[in-house]
Amino acid sequence: MPNLYVALAHYPVVNKNGDIIASAVTNLDLHDISRAAKTYGVKSFYVVTPLKDQQVLAQRIIAHWISGTGAAYNPARRSALEKIKVIDSVADVVEDIKGRENKYPATVVTSAHRYPESIGYEEFRNVMKSGQPHLLVFGTAWGLAEPFISKADYVLEPISGASDYNHLSVRTAAGIILDRLLGV
Amino acid sequence: MPNLYVALAHYPVVNKNGDIIASAVTNLDLHDISRAAKTYGVKSFYVVTPLKDQQVLAQRIIAHWISGTGAAYNPARRSALEKIKVIDSVADVVEDIKGRENKYPATVVTSAHRYPESIGYEEFRNVMKSGQPHLLVFGTAWGLAEPFISKADYVLEPISGASDYNHLSVRTAAGIILDRLLGV
Repeated sequence: MPNLYVALAHYPVVNKNGDIIASAVTNLDLHDISRAAKTYGVKSFYVVTPLKDQQVLAQRIIAHWISGTGAAYNPARRSALEKIKVIDSVADVVEDIKGRENKYPATVVTSAHRYPESIGYEEFRNVMKSGQPHLLVFGTAWGLAEPFISKADYVLEPISGASDYNHLSVRTAAGIILDRLLGV
Repeated sequence: MPNLYVALAHYPVVNKNGDIIASAVTNLDLHDISRAAKTYGVKSFYVVTPLKDQQVLAQRIIAHWISGTGAAYNPARRSALEKIKVIDSVADVVEDIKGRENKYPATVVTSAHRYPESIGYEEFRNVMKSGQPHLLVFGTAWGLAEPFISKADYVLEPISGASDYNHLSVRTAAGIILDRLLGV
């Protein structure tokens, strides 16, 4: 099994004007990314938001499918949503992983922009073969804030298709990136 | 550019009990799959439903982003949602493509199950190199109905990750499959 953790950051991200904001939690982000995380053997899926009301909202969605009526209706969703931990900050995620692995994870971020130091998917597959813990962070809204990206250990190449259109949803991007890194 | 069309079928699909149903349109399916279609150079994205009220709902969502306040707010969404055509049946999609291409498309369907005749992604990439039109059909709800699958020209292999969990959302599956077929 890969030693990979995933975080979906609602802070620090940017809005369409480039201002740093905390974004709102989107119900289907939790469903889609937890199901992809489960499919590809990701160890935990962290939903990161400093906003208490958004944490409550996320917990309520998860509880419905884990212990509420949704759990009986759809056990496949239950087993995916059980992978989610709601947490205050990416720094707290890193500490949580340290607690589990007895070692800090290397962080890898995603961006729709290319950086001089961007790493390709095949190359990062090889990096992960070390078995060391890695934390893959996705940004909501218009993407992760620049100061956060520049502190990461790795930046993945943007996803490119047949066009120069580059506006995938974070749900779709997360699925594609997990497939590129962990698909068989 | 690839000569590929995509359809999202809300009929004929099955519910969790295996009954053939017409499912409801999901707002984010239109957004996510149109953005993936635009990214990967898909020619058109057909939203297939025989239910008139669901056609109206889909048209209303699209209109908001193409000519409503959404168009000014987010031009990137506009250019993706412009790829959508709402249509009654897959048979009508095939005729629409015939009208554009002067040739019927070969149909390729997706399924979470493996069939003896399933075709791999690399192999289907090669098939598409002919430049002939192909129509890739995704099913909503619990997937496309069996009689529909058996009439298709090709069935793609299921997506496999590091686990045997196989419950991706159709939004995520569509993104991953387009990336496997058209990603660079």
